[in-house]
Amino acid sequence: MSPITLTTLRSVPPVFQGQVRDLAVRWALEETGTAHQLRLVDDAERATADYRQHSPFGKVPVYEEDGLTIFETGAIVQHIAETRGLLPQDHALRARARAWMFAALNSIDPDVIALGDIDHFHANSLWAKARRPDLVTSLSIRLAAVSEALRGRNFLANEFSAADILMIMVLRGLRHTPLVSPHADLARWRDRCEARPAFQRALAAQMKTYQSA
Amino acid sequence: MSPITLTTLRSVPPVFQGQVRDLAVRWALEETGTAHQLRLVDDAERATADYRQHSPFGKVPVYEEDGLTIFETGAIVQHIAETRGLLPQDHALRARARAWMFAALNSIDPDVIALGDIDHFHANSLWAKARRPDLVTSLSIRLAAVSEALRGRNFLANEFSAADILMIMVLRGLRHTPLVSPHADLARWRDRCEARPAFQRALAAQMKTYQSA
Repeated sequence: MSPITLTTLRSVPPVFQGQVRDLAVRWALEETGTAHQLRLVDDAERATADYRQHSPFGKVPVYEEDGLTIFETGAIVQHIAETRGLLPQDHALRARARAWMFAALNSIDPDVIALGDIDHFHANSLWAKARRPDLVTSLSIRLAAVSEALRGRNFLANEFSAADILMIMVLRGLRHTPLVSPHADLARWRDRCEARPAFQRALAAQMKTYQSA
Repeated sequence: MSPITLTTLRSVPPVFQGQVRDLAVRWALEETGTAHQLRLVDDAERATADYRQHSPFGKVPVYEEDGLTIFETGAIVQHIAETRGLLPQDHALRARARAWMFAALNSIDPDVIALGDIDHFHANSLWAKARRPDLVTSLSIRLAAVSEALRGRNFLANEFSAADILMIMVLRGLRHTPLVSPHADLARWRDRCEARPAFQRALAAQMKTYQSA
């Protein structure tokens, strides 16, 4: 068996440190006690045809295991979850966890991406100032729904699962805003997830990568 | 075994007919020859606490099978794919199909959603006019990458799979634009997918639902 290789960025601007998506993969690997090695890439390499053979949009992370190369963070985390046990055993809870994995990436992330784009790249544009309030409203309605779903539960599918990993990863794109805190169940769940030793190890490892650069 | 029930909208404005997301689920069911019944809902029901127990954001589709209730189109299509055979048998191609399912929903859909929001709900806003050109550029770069990945392949994972279903569903959100056609491999793949009898049956069934309303 060849070692698992996780490809990620050699360096990123400080504002994105602690939220680049290899964090979710590192976290899943830490939760399951899975050894892995890193391969660091820069923008020039990500633009090459060779890199895009394995990652069509030139993104990170890319995951390699036993000759299998997987792109898309959601697919990588799901692969780890299905093969190494980051999903509930119970049939219904397992389905719930899978649904929340997709919810993180397709029902929450689009608004988070749009808001990050405004705040990090277009903050001084007139269009961004005009657009932002409605976007925040729409996102807050979705966050309230996630918070409601967490009421009376410790985790999205009751026990900790890959769904929590992906939702936390998405919500870390809002760290520069105060949007999560007003939702009490959501904020408590976030703190509960981020206090996990495996998350802390994954975060420290990502930061260490950038400090080495 | 109780029958499969697919919950979807009783009616939608003409511009969204043929692209509401139950289309992807209907298509997956048609491809696998799976009988199902419909449950039609309106906006008032989608707002109820009872509905949101099963669909936290009040969205459609919702899928019920043997006591299991699944929300999120991606999760539903994946469930059908995994249990009824809409993924390649080959290990590497299966991983590729799963990666493209997530790519459709997390790397392409956010820009498609943003563009649809501008064109359908804010077309006359100054911010939307200022924002649109950059968004089209960003989306076109992604579409070129999908087209490149399809070069020399009939489908995203070589053989037809759930990845094609989800990517087609996402790209149908661009039907009001000319953005797909310039990418020759992408446009040919789209036509190949949409010519499938199962897709045609699914589309006709969705349109029939709205005509009955």
